[in-house]
Order: sequence, then C-alpha cells, then structure tokens
Amino acid sequence: MTILGIDPGSSITGFGIISADRGRLAFVAAGALRVGRSGDLPARLRRAADGVRDLILEHAPDEVCVERVFQHANVHSALVLAHVRGAILAEVDRAGLACREYTALQIKKALVGQGHAAKEQVRSMVQRLLRIHSTGDSLDVSDALAVAICHAHAGPGLRRWEQG
Amino acid sequence: MTILGIDPGSSITGFGIISADRGRLAFVAAGALRVGRSGDLPARLRRAADGVRDLILEHAPDEVCVERVFQHANVHSALVLAHVRGAILAEVDRAGLACREYTALQIKKALVGQGHAAKEQVRSMVQRLLRIHSTGDSLDVSDALAVAICHAHAGPGLRRWEQG
Repeated sequence: MTILGIDPGSSITGFGIISADRGRLAFVAAGALRVGRSGDLPARLRRAADGVRDLILEHAPDEVCVERVFQHANVHSALVLAHVRGAILAEVDRAGLACREYTALQIKKALVGQGHAAKEQVRSMVQRLLRIHSTGDSLDVSDALAVAICHAHAGPGLRRWEQG
Repeated sequence: MTILGIDPGSSITGFGIISADRGRLAFVAAGALRVGRSGDLPARLRRAADGVRDLILEHAPDEVCVERVFQHANVHSALVLAHVRGAILAEVDRAGLACREYTALQIKKALVGQGHAAKEQVRSMVQRLLRIHSTGDSLDVSDALAVAICHAHAGPGLRRWEQG
C-alpha cells in the first residue's frame, strides 16, 4: 500500500510518500510544494491543490493523510492555513481518495511514543524508521513523512474498526 | 459584464449572478449550493468547489467576488468556513478568474450607505436594485447578490486604480 502524507502550510506544503507492506515501511518520495509566501491567496491555493493533484497522478497513493491543525500561534495564520487545507482536501476528495486526519499528539505518540516530543525527535525517528539519512532542511518534509508513518501504524486498526 | 458573487458558508454557499452594463444592473441567476451540514469535510469542500466550477462553466462570468470573513462567532466555525473559502478560491483561480474580496462593511456601505445595516435591509436593497420581488428565504442568496452589486459599483474604480 502506498500512503501520501501531507503537511499543509501557508507558504510551504510538505509531502511524504511511503509504502507500507505488512508493517514494513519504505521511503518512496518526499519534498515540498512551495506556493509562495506573499501575493494572491487564490493563486497560492490553486498551486497547492494542483501540486497535490499531480502527486496523486504520479504516485497513485492508496490512502492519503494530513495533520489536523485546529490551534495556531495567531488567528490570521490559522485562517490562512485553513484555506490551504480546504483547497487540498477538496482536491484529495476529487481524486476519489479518503483523507484521514491525525493530530500532532497522535503523530508524535505513534512515532516517538509520547505526545510532547520535539520536532527534531520526530525527524530523527522518521529517518530511522524509513532508513534514510536525511529529509532535507525543511521540517515540513519530515512532518509529512511522520503523518504517513502514523497512518501506516494506525490505518489498519481504523479500517477494522470502521468495518465492524 | 457578468459578475458572480459568492457567499461561502460551511453548509450553504450562496451565489448570485448579475450583469452590469454602464451602471445598469440586471439579475441573471441566484441560488444556494447545499453541501450538507455534517459528514465528511473533504466531500463537502469538493461539492462546494464543483458547484462553483459548474456555475463558472454555465454562466462564464467576467469577474468573481466573495465576502471576506475574518471574524466569526467561534473559532471552530471560522476555521471550517476558511476551509470552504479555500476550496472555492482555488477553483476560481483555476478558471483563470481573479476573485475580489469585500468586507461586510464595504458591502453594506455600497448597498445601504452605512456599514451597520441589518441583513434584511441589505436584502430589500438587493431586490430594489435588481428589480426582483424575492431572493428566497435564504439570506445567503441575497448576501451573494449583495457582494456582486458591491463589486459592480467598486470594480471599475478598482480597475482604474490598479492600472495606474
């Protein structure tokens, strides 16, 4: 199974694609969609949505997951981020894929074992679990891989739970 | 010129289409995209985006405008609404159209002459200016027509200002 994890951001949206085969995880691809920090919001939203559409077309993920963010340093940032998430979630649905959401707490617990781990701890765990040396400078990329790994762990249980 | 006004909402998104010809306004169409109040957020976002895409295909508006909302009764509602706006704005940009935003204050001033008008006052002014008897029960529809009328008034000045 191929899993696409997305970490939406107002200027950079991280993505991470992994394969999960009976608990064995492997890195497929990862990177960042850079939609620009300033300028026209609709154009930035469309670039994020187009980027996700292209990733789905290229990698044909079986499942998609995203970090759920309902808290933020300030209201304006939270609202801009919600716009980006809205454009991306609509695009994932349009591709006929469900989009599972996980909180930062759930992701950290799944990877590091406790919910208050630092982002750097999450990153080093991502590298260890996927047997890669680096996820680049951007924490958006390791965050996106982290949500994909979290889903690889939680997904099977969630599916059993939903089916019965 | 044909103008599409949109009033995004978490369960109902109002739309209003008018023509504006040298200051003379005429009603073209209006209604509500009902995406459901509960259930899967990505599917609701996609339905809103698809609805806007279909309206653009059917009516080929020259310009699109939307109410800017950065305040709300509670944070959760504001964030859900921002998701809907994000899905819609991305779709408008994808159609190659700019999306002008107006605050509620600007819309009320343009229609009623003062920024603290009640929604019902805005509605009756919409009906008078467009020479229609009703905009239906939903205030979302009259709000969408109101932003279109506001843009019909403000748009030419804004274009001159941007061009020089």
